[in-house]
Amino acid sequence: MDDNSTLLSQIVQPTDLHRFSLKELQEVAREVRAAILDRVSKTGGHFSSNLGTVELTVALYAAYHIPPDKVIWDTGHQAYPHKMLTGRLDRFDTLRKHGGLSGFLRREEHELDLFGAGHAGTAISAALGFAVARDRLGTEEKVVAVTGDAAIASGMSWEALNHGGDMRTDMTVVLNDNRMSIAPNVGALTTYLQRLRARPTLQGLAQRAKSVVERLPSPMTRVAAGLRHGITHYFAPEETGTIFEEMGWEYIGPVDGHDLPTLLEIFRNVRELSGPTFVHALTVKGKGYDVAEEDARKWHGVVPFDVGACEMAKAVGPVTYTQAFGEAAIECAEEDERIVAITAAMPDGTGLTKFSKQIPERYYDVGIAEQHAVTFAAGLAAGGLRPLCAIYSTFLQRGFDQVLHDVCIQNLPVRFFMDRAGLVGDDGPTHHGAFDLSYMMCLPNMVVAAPRDTTELRQMVHFAAGYDEGPIAVRYPRGASDDRLPESRTPVALGRSEVLREGDDILVVALGSMVSVAWEAAQILAAEGIEATVLNARFAKPLDGDAILRHASACGRVLTIEENVRTGGFGQQVLDLLTTEGLGAIPCRVLALPDRFVEHGTQPILRSECGLDAQSVVTAARSLVGQRLPRKA
Amino acid sequence: MDDNSTLLSQIVQPTDLHRFSLKELQEVAREVRAAILDRVSKTGGHFSSNLGTVELTVALYAAYHIPPDKVIWDTGHQAYPHKMLTGRLDRFDTLRKHGGLSGFLRREEHELDLFGAGHAGTAISAALGFAVARDRLGTEEKVVAVTGDAAIASGMSWEALNHGGDMRTDMTVVLNDNRMSIAPNVGALTTYLQRLRARPTLQGLAQRAKSVVERLPSPMTRVAAGLRHGITHYFAPEETGTIFEEMGWEYIGPVDGHDLPTLLEIFRNVRELSGPTFVHALTVKGKGYDVAEEDARKWHGVVPFDVGACEMAKAVGPVTYTQAFGEAAIECAEEDERIVAITAAMPDGTGLTKFSKQIPERYYDVGIAEQHAVTFAAGLAAGGLRPLCAIYSTFLQRGFDQVLHDVCIQNLPVRFFMDRAGLVGDDGPTHHGAFDLSYMMCLPNMVVAAPRDTTELRQMVHFAAGYDEGPIAVRYPRGASDDRLPESRTPVALGRSEVLREGDDILVVALGSMVSVAWEAAQILAAEGIEATVLNARFAKPLDGDAILRHASACGRVLTIEENVRTGGFGQQVLDLLTTEGLGAIPCRVLALPDRFVEHGTQPILRSECGLDAQSVVTAARSLVGQRLPRKA
Repeated sequence: MDDNSTLLSQIVQPTDLHRFSLKELQEVAREVRAAILDRVSKTGGHFSSNLGTVELTVALYAAYHIPPDKVIWDTGHQAYPHKMLTGRLDRFDTLRKHGGLSGFLRREEHELDLFGAGHAGTAISAALGFAVARDRLGTEEKVVAVTGDAAIASGMSWEALNHGGDMRTDMTVVLNDNRMSIAPNVGALTTYLQRLRARPTLQGLAQRAKSVVERLPSPMTRVAAGLRHGITHYFAPEETGTIFEEMGWEYIGPVDGHDLPTLLEIFRNVRELSGPTFVHALTVKGKGYDVAEEDARKWHGVVPFDVGACEMAKAVGPVTYTQAFGEAAIECAEEDERIVAITAAMPDGTGLTKFSKQIPERYYDVGIAEQHAVTFAAGLAAGGLRPLCAIYSTFLQRGFDQVLHDVCIQNLPVRFFMDRAGLVGDDGPTHHGAFDLSYMMCLPNMVVAAPRDTTELRQMVHFAAGYDEGPIAVRYPRGASDDRLPESRTPVALGRSEVLREGDDILVVALGSMVSVAWEAAQILAAEGIEATVLNARFAKPLDGDAILRHASACGRVLTIEENVRTGGFGQQVLDLLTTEGLGAIPCRVLALPDRFVEHGTQPILRSECGLDAQSVVTAARSLVGQRLPRKA
Repeated sequence: MDDNSTLLSQIVQPTDLHRFSLKELQEVAREVRAAILDRVSKTGGHFSSNLGTVELTVALYAAYHIPPDKVIWDTGHQAYPHKMLTGRLDRFDTLRKHGGLSGFLRREEHELDLFGAGHAGTAISAALGFAVARDRLGTEEKVVAVTGDAAIASGMSWEALNHGGDMRTDMTVVLNDNRMSIAPNVGALTTYLQRLRARPTLQGLAQRAKSVVERLPSPMTRVAAGLRHGITHYFAPEETGTIFEEMGWEYIGPVDGHDLPTLLEIFRNVRELSGPTFVHALTVKGKGYDVAEEDARKWHGVVPFDVGACEMAKAVGPVTYTQAFGEAAIECAEEDERIVAITAAMPDGTGLTKFSKQIPERYYDVGIAEQHAVTFAAGLAAGGLRPLCAIYSTFLQRGFDQVLHDVCIQNLPVRFFMDRAGLVGDDGPTHHGAFDLSYMMCLPNMVVAAPRDTTELRQMVHFAAGYDEGPIAVRYPRGASDDRLPESRTPVALGRSEVLREGDDILVVALGSMVSVAWEAAQILAAEGIEATVLNARFAKPLDGDAILRHASACGRVLTIEENVRTGGFGQQVLDLLTTEGLGAIPCRVLALPDRFVEHGTQPILRSECGLDAQSVVTAARSLVGQRLPRKA
């Protein structure tokens, strides 16, 4: 612990803040900001979003009585101040490390992590659930959801505002408006919020409202609400009826989200009110660290850096899948005017930033709106274009029905590029792309491919760009590829695999990221005298049935390996094929992710833990070979 | 064809309307309404929603040039007038019959069915895709989305409005506001639209706007837009800035959606404008048929009825799964104060209407908002309640990410009840519940059960209500159950199956709706001397591994049957179990839905077509038994 955390280090629960004076609370905020800078510069992690919520968190936690009051955070990566104010300061050196603090909220991690969130837009729904449960169970705590301006534009936030505004349930939404998701925000709502920003802020109003409201007895809170509403309108008389008011929410704002005294007064007042209340706080992503304020996008997620030098180490290393996709997408677009690219608020993460600069007229960032992204892409395809829809494996879950109902049923040629498929590492269970093979392969008409390395990804992007027969999805992992594989390249053809190595003892059918693992295992096995055929499946659907059956018959044992859960995954399709084709008697082992959620940690640690490394393949192969040999003998 | 369709019968494409006078168009509308009444009273189908869109469709199709102009319909069951005006009048006797006209739009059915839709809320996204494709390809047709007031409250409609309003793309949204989904609408937006309804309508405005706008040369359309905007505001000066305007859409309305002359004028004017335009039309569900106007909910979907008597035949027959769920849910709620029920705009369809009347304080209809429904339920569970979340199998696809991210990762005890699992019949491919086993079983922590009949469903509702260990989903089909099964009942226990019959020749493992099919097949097989063990699996996850392995070993052949696609389904889990446990050599057949989308038709026809009937089981069993016996001999 550094010397700067004299007050912060005394805080083990939010109510500890109640004994501090305003001046001390300001000192707490300063210490929280310093601690974020100190800790995150050493461990890496989410940076600029957490610098933006310091005063908001201190003010909320000083104004509310937590517990029993409840604060639900949307998209946990704005919640480091929350973690520090709930007794976890001294564990920040373990942040995002295997077995250490999660970078997001986790119900298992702390009793005040009331609702986990890695995906954006869930907090208002969840908080409404908590509020309704409170009313049913007859308790009286207050419920607050803190959400962001990008998250609130997602469809499910709107659904929750629509429901909550109608129910008249007592709860508060705090909008942390920093004009950013990871990239700058898009959408009409962003423009609208900018107009609200231009209103005079509530500076000074708080004192006035307080003097009125605090003198009222508690049954008068509804009257007080009306009164404060009147005061708000007195301050901004030219604007009547914000969208949020039309949806049934009392709108209070805008307020400077770094002005601790005003925030405190407002939250203390809001806490006394009842009904659906909406507080609009203006914050600055990266607040207090100049370079992060200037380029919050660059400083959103950081690797360890030198605080004084204000510099992150430049990522040096082999080309990532993300980069390879981005470059191939541009190549395809340059060859074909009909190619357009779609992202859902992740231009950097999906590798489309360069595309957006080079071919802006064919680039569409729809915001955190995966449902719309998919059906918009379906419309583009039906209208004669060739859309590349680049969405992380985990986020495309949000568009599952649209993939099924709007793309697959109509057999429209939308090309999906699912980055972060498999174990993503530090972000943990909400972000692992562990399910896409299962949720995509069960859909009729869908083709699913996975490249063995970045070079093959480029081939597959070109293949998919030209594939007009129906929908196709390409999945690939976070990071760079293992390039120890033989360089021989065959063209990518629908449903055709690639033989990387032939042997008589066992067939290893590997998909995508697991091909290099299978290759490495085959070298180890060969040294022991076990010769494996290694098949790079390339396509999970349709399977290369001919090749699999031929080699399976020849080898007499089969092992499959994939970075997806077992149920509905690649290996089960191979099992089904063998059984259906009368080769069910061949001993077969399926290596896949387990039927549990995998924690955070580095990719190598997690893969090894899940039995998806060369050593696990070797062990399984030895056992299979042993299983057969005795019977032969 | 009836005598009343003299004009309508001449129309083979929308542009045929251009040659009619206003008076003739009014006659066409009368004929369309008469034809809906005539045809749907004979075939059954969606009724009141289509009576509501008659004038809207005639006016749109007379005002626009279709093709090349494009109209995209949201939720196809408001599109019978569209079908009649696109040359399909004489096929209406085949409506919703196997091989006949679909009850929804289908791209395969007609070139002007531009985008299919069974699920609500997709049209604005799709239309924006068509409009952007137009701009990229350099053509000049107009694009219109027609959506409903229930659909527009769904999250993806908001996402699309947010994107489209920001893009400034030239397209029009027509809001068909009838204040209903199937049941009366809910949500703050509904209240808001009611306030807009109270504005003076645009009656008479059209003439005025026309005289101004039509004299302007085409490059002046932007000016004209501003001008007309001014006129609209002149008519409703006290209201400034609707939500739609704040989101970047030019708002025009409200307009009487049955006033053909005004609609015509407005659409002709709107067609000349550019940019995102939003027309708010007020319609009456069931318009023109008194009893349907009075009870549009009852007359939403109809069986054949007597037009003069205004009466539908009362459904007589055994209790349906839907009814059984609804009754059991009330029993559970009466026993336990913590039980609450959630529907997403389907109180009748899910069987919760009685619950909503009897226990209104614990009943939540969130509107067409499955994403919110699921996370709201997760919040309720985290807050200490026991939520029953009743959503059709096909609609829960919309909440897939929420089931995964908010319920399963946090292992929250939300109870899902997935009605309409399997083949639903007349509604066809957008509504078949063909995927829920695949998308639910791949999720860690999730329990998936399926009852053999309505009595077992009641048992399972009670079991699930008391199951607090984590999430659980119960899936069951549309309709009533086959009650020829033996009445012996064992209590439902987690992961435990039920032996219905024992035999030495083959093990048939059946899930849910397929148990009675397996039972029937076993009787036929017994008559041939083949004795089957019939296992009612009850749980798809966790599997009753002990029972399956024991009986599989004893019988030496295994057949599985389920009403779900094969990939990631029940049968593949049985295969995986057998292989993993060293019984892979046992001949095994998996009967499941095919890897294609199944058309509409009655459940018996479709099940038979998909090989999910007793005869298919018999054939497969004979073949399996034959496959083994020769080797024994």
